Amino acid sequence: MRDVAVIGVGMQKWGELWEKSLRDIFTEAAVLAIDDAGVDRIDSMYVGCMSSGLFVGQEHLGSLLADYLGVAPIPALRVESACASGGAAFRQAFFDVASGANDIVLAGGVEKMTDVDGGGATYALSTAADAEYEVYHGVTFPGLYAMMAMAHMHAHGTTREQLAHVSVKNHRNGAKNPRAQYPFEITVEQVLNSIMIADPLTILDCSPITDGAAAAILCPLEMAGELSDKPPVKVLASAHATDSIALHSRDDLAWLGAVEKAGEVAYKMAGLTPSDIDFAEVHDCFTIAEICVIEALGFFEKGKGGVGAESGETAAGGRIPVNPSGGLKSKGHPVGATGVAQIVETVEQLRGESGGRQVEGAEIGMTENMGGTGGSCVVHILAKA
Amino acid sequence: MRDVAVIGVGMQKWGELWEKSLRDIFTEAAVLAIDDAGVDRIDSMYVGCMSSGLFVGQEHLGSLLADYLGVAPIPALRVESACASGGAAFRQAFFDVASGANDIVLAGGVEKMTDVDGGGATYALSTAADAEYEVYHGVTFPGLYAMMAMAHMHAHGTTREQLAHVSVKNHRNGAKNPRAQYPFEITVEQVLNSIMIADPLTILDCSPITDGAAAAILCPLEMAGELSDKPPVKVLASAHATDSIALHSRDDLAWLGAVEKAGEVAYKMAGLTPSDIDFAEVHDCFTIAEICVIEALGFFEKGKGGVGAESGETAAGGRIPVNPSGGLKSKGHPVGATGVAQIVETVEQLRGESGGRQVEGAEIGMTENMGGTGGSCVVHILAKA
Repeated sequence: MRDVAVIGVGMQKWGELWEKSLRDIFTEAAVLAIDDAGVDRIDSMYVGCMSSGLFVGQEHLGSLLADYLGVAPIPALRVESACASGGAAFRQAFFDVASGANDIVLAGGVEKMTDVDGGGATYALSTAADAEYEVYHGVTFPGLYAMMAMAHMHAHGTTREQLAHVSVKNHRNGAKNPRAQYPFEITVEQVLNSIMIADPLTILDCSPITDGAAAAILCPLEMAGELSDKPPVKVLASAHATDSIALHSRDDLAWLGAVEKAGEVAYKMAGLTPSDIDFAEVHDCFTIAEICVIEALGFFEKGKGGVGAESGETAAGGRIPVNPSGGLKSKGHPVGATGVAQIVETVEQLRGESGGRQVEGAEIGMTENMGGTGGSCVVHILAKA
Repeated sequence: MRDVAVIGVGMQKWGELWEKSLRDIFTEAAVLAIDDAGVDRIDSMYVGCMSSGLFVGQEHLGSLLADYLGVAPIPALRVESACASGGAAFRQAFFDVASGANDIVLAGGVEKMTDVDGGGATYALSTAADAEYEVYHGVTFPGLYAMMAMAHMHAHGTTREQLAHVSVKNHRNGAKNPRAQYPFEITVEQVLNSIMIADPLTILDCSPITDGAAAAILCPLEMAGELSDKPPVKVLASAHATDSIALHSRDDLAWLGAVEKAGEVAYKMAGLTPSDIDFAEVHDCFTIAEICVIEALGFFEKGKGGVGAESGETAAGGRIPVNPSGGLKSKGHPVGATGVAQIVETVEQLRGESGGRQVEGAEIGMTENMGGTGGSCVVHILAKA
């Protein structure tokens, strides 16, 4: 397989984008990425989107978005792995280039979540869980992650304050990200005293409902110099793993097997270990998620993720900065776009373009994008070429 | 890229499968394909499904179906290109093997369409069209294809009876297919006199609402002999193309540009011309679709598809047998499964396993799977290895 580089990335400021439709926000991000790379054509395209059918009554996004981006008749395909759809789109684009099938491939992700009311959004998101064994019985995602948090607290002594520290740290990072939906700092006290959603998670433990898109341009590493003036970022590894879709099917409710597996595969593919990673963008859909993920990826021992969050080791300047972008919590979480936005942040960090939130000496970055309660996970490792 | 073979295929009898859920019918087809190939593991999996969110309230099918098939933690991804989702899943599986990323890959397709009422199914299917510029104004798929039929009749003199001949021929083939939803013959008079759906299309011009799944096992051609006792079928070409999603954006309402483009790419990749193809499984979601497709693929001159249908050239024993399986019209059309079922039929034909509907001397077969009104199209060419 050919070595693959990322030569362009783009995303808009995320938020409640009432004046734009799904096709508008996707096209906006795609054009930013194309402009960033400086390419004059796209050979193939992948779109990550979780549930445009339920959110905006539109499937067939490959055709729609190739049409509106003006790149038809190229192959353009939507892929879906719930909230890991963006990471999965980037992974398919990686293999498209690596295999030799196509040279300039766009990986994009999009979700337009505010065109339904809150109940509609909660229902659409619930389709990432097991409809027959979880959702029919009333489960929602805050409820599922609350159970994971309770299990983690029970098994490992993780505290309510440690959960809050994840949110506080991500908002501190996001306050320096001009594209974040909620670019402001919060305190542990604010998290603890905000509205209860599902015990022990309050609203400031939960990522928001967001409209947004992100895009990246991939090409063979050996062609990067001729296609673009931008310093290429090399894709060292791409891994995807699955687990039981239902939380109740797992031996340990507080352990993410798909994240562990995808991490293992990615480390092996790149020939690296967790200590080689300079920073990571991970899937903090809820604060407990980040704690479980940083354990499963090997940055902290099992059960020690909460202690790690409180210690400052995952903060800017810490041992392993996590979510310098602000993460899903501050940056926003348009579910199908999140995995590609992690790539956007990682590429910019590796180029040294991240301004006030720049990770010093960033040479190797990891992205971890997760579907449902961890029923699927996509991990990538990127490095300065 | 490595040469790729299909070594196993499977599908159940399609129809209104009230006693089975989406996970049941997918798993059933997948196990049939695994048994057919005789493999003892799967390395990676793709699931084609158009709109499980709207049909059954379930997204995240990669995780769900890997879980229920018992193959987690392997990578398992859902892909969507409306009614071309199955063909797209097979195409991603092809590249997964061809690239060297994985050796034994399952491509499946599934749709459970009868768990909503007729209005719900019509709405879910409409999401393959342009939600903002077509669906909001009341368009449905029978209406869109009726406009294409009117345009074809106006431009080329195609007759109502020629449309009916497509349905009659496909039901004649499907009557010999034990897995078809409607395995019986019909007459031109019955088509003409059946209930009007959207002028000029009556209900017997329209493919039905169906529950069903289909699956295929792919591997490197050079490993086929050691992995399976079944005669391998080689994938000669895989092509995907897009067009405007909205019918009104096209210069010619009766011409399928994405089908023409995907056909051109596939013929070039295989080094073949239309006259080399022994039979084709094509996307007859409505009778007019088959007429347009056999022109765009080069089997008939532009405007002559209707004459071709009436002439018997596409019937069993004709110059280019089309839809020996019975096509979408007789076999059924569980939209995400259709593209993989075309592969099932083609593999069985090339193995000489098709019983009363066997195409004599079949050496090379083509599949053509289409999304929406032709906004996307996936074409494959398969041959005896």
